Amino acid sequence: MARYLENVWYLAAWDHELQADDVLARRLLDRPVVMFRKSDGTVVALDDKCPHRFAPLSRGKRVGDALQCGYHGLTFNASGASIKNFFSDQIPPNAKVTSYPTKVLHRGVWIWFGEAGRADPALIPDLSFVEDEMLSIHRITVRANYELVTDNLMDLSHAEFVHAESFRLGGIMFNGQHSVVEEGDDIWSNWLMTDLPPPPSAPQDETVDRWLDMRWSAPAVMVQRMGIVPSGSPPRGAAPHNFSMHVITPETAASSHYFHSYFTGMPKTPEQAEPPRAFTEEDEPMLEAVQRTLGDVDFWDHKPVILNIDAASIRVRRRLAGLIAAETRVSEADRGGAPA
Amino acid sequence: MARYLENVWYLAAWDHELQADDVLARRLLDRPVVMFRKSDGTVVALDDKCPHRFAPLSRGKRVGDALQCGYHGLTFNASGASIKNFFSDQIPPNAKVTSYPTKVLHRGVWIWFGEAGRADPALIPDLSFVEDEMLSIHRITVRANYELVTDNLMDLSHAEFVHAESFRLGGIMFNGQHSVVEEGDDIWSNWLMTDLPPPPSAPQDETVDRWLDMRWSAPAVMVQRMGIVPSGSPPRGAAPHNFSMHVITPETAASSHYFHSYFTGMPKTPEQAEPPRAFTEEDEPMLEAVQRTLGDVDFWDHKPVILNIDAASIRVRRRLAGLIAAETRVSEADRGGAPA
Amino acid sequence: MARYLENVWYLAAWDHELQADDVLARRLLDRPVVMFRKSDGTVVALDDKCPHRFAPLSRGKRVGDALQCGYHGLTFNASGASIKNFFSDQIPPNAKVTSYPTKVLHRGVWIWFGEAGRADPALIPDLSFVEDEMLSIHRITVRANYELVTDNLMDLSHAEFVHAESFRLGGIMFNGQHSVVEEGDDIWSNWLMTDLPPPPSAPQDETVDRWLDMRWSAPAVMVQRMGIVPSGSPPRGAAPHNFSMHVITPETAASSHYFHSYFTGMPKTPEQAEPPRAFTEEDEPMLEAVQRTLGDVDFWDHKPVILNIDAASIRVRRRLAGLIAAETRVSEADRGGAPA
Repeated sequence: MARYLENVWYLAAWDHELQADDVLARRLLDRPVVMFRKSDGTVVALDDKCPHRFAPLSRGKRVGDALQCGYHGLTFNASGASIKNFFSDQIPPNAKVTSYPTKVLHRGVWIWFGEAGRADPALIPDLSFVEDEMLSIHRITVRANYELVTDNLMDLSHAEFVHAESFRLGGIMFNGQHSVVEEGDDIWSNWLMTDLPPPPSAPQDETVDRWLDMRWSAPAVMVQRMGIVPSGSPPRGAAPHNFSMHVITPETAASSHYFHSYFTGMPKTPEQAEPPRAFTEEDEPMLEAVQRTLGDVDFWDHKPVILNIDAASIRVRRRLAGLIAAETRVSEADRGGAPA
Repeated sequence: MARYLENVWYLAAWDHELQADDVLARRLLDRPVVMFRKSDGTVVALDDKCPHRFAPLSRGKRVGDALQCGYHGLTFNASGASIKNFFSDQIPPNAKVTSYPTKVLHRGVWIWFGEAGRADPALIPDLSFVEDEMLSIHRITVRANYELVTDNLMDLSHAEFVHAESFRLGGIMFNGQHSVVEEGDDIWSNWLMTDLPPPPSAPQDETVDRWLDMRWSAPAVMVQRMGIVPSGSPPRGAAPHNFSMHVITPETAASSHYFHSYFTGMPKTPEQAEPPRAFTEEDEPMLEAVQRTLGDVDFWDHKPVILNIDAASIRVRRRLAGLIAAETRVSEADRGGAPA
Repeated sequence: MARYLENVWYLAAWDHELQADDVLARRLLDRPVVMFRKSDGTVVALDDKCPHRFAPLSRGKRVGDALQCGYHGLTFNASGASIKNFFSDQIPPNAKVTSYPTKVLHRGVWIWFGEAGRADPALIPDLSFVEDEMLSIHRITVRANYELVTDNLMDLSHAEFVHAESFRLGGIMFNGQHSVVEEGDDIWSNWLMTDLPPPPSAPQDETVDRWLDMRWSAPAVMVQRMGIVPSGSPPRGAAPHNFSMHVITPETAASSHYFHSYFTGMPKTPEQAEPPRAFTEEDEPMLEAVQRTLGDVDFWDHKPVILNIDAASIRVRRRLAGLIAAETRVSEADRGGAPA
């Protein structure tokens, strides 16, 4: 069974995926979760499994600020307690489901699977730039483990091959400077390519420098920033003019929800915001092929050859493994057990 | 591996599913079975696996009162003995398959997987009412364990929710009286709803009482009776005017054959007798969703919350478990082993 | 895990399946293999799994006589060594994949999974008759273990039943003489049918003798010869006028590549050479049904009843098991372990 980091916020859905009367089922971290909105707009997230006869509660309906099971009508409030049995005044005290803290922020619905008392919304990464309506947002499901998707983002050198036709970088990353920078708990994977021919829209008599950086926050929240300046100007000094967001939430051990936002320069409705072809036709088939090759065997047990370009992705894998191990030790100590 | 009650008749097929020259393959209790008719109309049921090279015998053909394998022609009689090897006069004595007792009764083909000597047709539940041609009969395959399907029938309170749109009971069961009655080895789940508004076709100046009962016989043979009388008349005293049959035969641990007959008021051919929409669009998706939630984990290990409406279905689950355990003890004692 | 004979040539592909710039992925003996051609026309076969991030190398492209991974560009030469990392001059010494010996012969590409030093092309069975362009060649994938497919060919008595409609033998094999002949390591399964009515094209006043022989070479290379002479002439004395080839290469434990060539009397392009209907509509469904019946349980553990017609197929199964066991003993002795 895969272990996931628990005391951290996960992006569960885009805000627009959950309209007023919607009842949304989604598998997150290998758990069935059902979400609906209270009348005040806040989101309730419950285990999607009625404790009576195990019907998915998502087959039921929202009744006021509660959720009524579609099988025998047992009704649960926002805290997961059963408040109504249509056939009796008595409700067994164990007729309850787990309720998870949620927070609507940055156009998303965030969920917390760890200790409820530690679910501080201030821990949600600052993704306020996503609130700019000039950024389009979408979500795809990739049949690959979330750490494979993270690897792909923390090592953008793949763009020279996987996206050779789409991005046409033409080898500028081959001689780029790649650096890994730690910033608190976050890890940056930064590329700087200098003395490049200018793009058509720039003065043609001087070369340019480009940067392409990705910041990772646990467990799999990534922000990409790109920029271009005349050669010799301080890179990253001016505000980068292009941010995009990549947040990966595990669906199962072998599949992921990929939430993405990117600058399109005009507002788009969710229906208009299609995922870029580079995602669906280039990254996604490659990631899924790798997942099939890995099968049920752990990534490290395949004994990967480590290249220089893996510096950031390996650092991230180790950081995440360390955070999960620390949680496990604390949790076992709490139960009086010996640390693993 | 699931344990099934063995010394009991199972409904294997409707009579009309097996025409004179048909060779019918069906998985029953996780076993592959092939059925065909002898010229006298009786049904032969054999293991659907040739002992020579393991071809399904159902890929062969009926030759007289025997079944010829479609791979190399080895031919088996009604008792499962090989009677013909086209390439030699010699037939190894172990060239045989298990033959199961069968009985055609009540428009159905019944099969017995237990000790052949105990296969008394008198043990088939009396379902003679099904022989009335005003009852339509059909069969569907539900991808859910047969005990889940039984639960669904022994607790009809689900009609208020699963069938809210189809049956429009409007809450009359919320205040109904539910009782569980034992009758020999059978268990009744009985509902009585009193002082209801009259249906449009009845005198409008008096209220009515309705009953809705389900009788269970092991392993999963159920008969439903419904009736309506002026309020205060003895319920169930007059012959109920509406019977229907629900017989569930395990296909695998996670799927079931559901044989159903119900009053349609006119004769219908099998082709005309479609399953009611309430089955295929309401019960079936719910049962399959519950099965997916249960996965490979035993029902009890999910620790169901017990409500008052579960009284009959829980009684049935325990009765059936007791019958299976008793068979296991007897069978182990026969082998000289200690009881479990 | 299935054990396969390793120190033997397997037919991996038809020559025409691998054109100059093709990169062909094929699963062979449960291993992912990628094949491409060098400029001199020889074929390179590598493990289809980049050791860096486990992308299938078959998603990459041929660059000169090397194969460039489609994920991050790591490039491998014909011996499986990485010769190019676009992002560094350094290549870790463990950045390599296994390369398998190959040989193009008899219109096919042969591959060797055993000890490379023993890969002598002289060990490829003589199938030079396949080079006759009057023979059509094709390949199908059968979802059945290769030994089941071999059984089917080494016991052609099935033609009387499986192919009753296609071949219309009409029972001539029932009284045929079946003999098993060993010829070195090869095993012949030979049928002789005598005193048959003449075919329409022959003189109608005398009977004929027909033979139908199949030669097996390890692991699953079979050659079929058929002939007909006036009754009493020495059978098989004259050159048989009709050869066909059946070579089975395991894809997985439950599926096989079936390479077949047969006399069509005219040259056909690969696109024109469709598999005979008797294969795809008669043999294949039967073999796949048997495989489904066997499931994951070993053939022998199903305790097959042995008939006279099984003489050759059983001899072949035992010969092959002996060869595999001998390889295992040698390999364990090499490692200093005790023989199994």
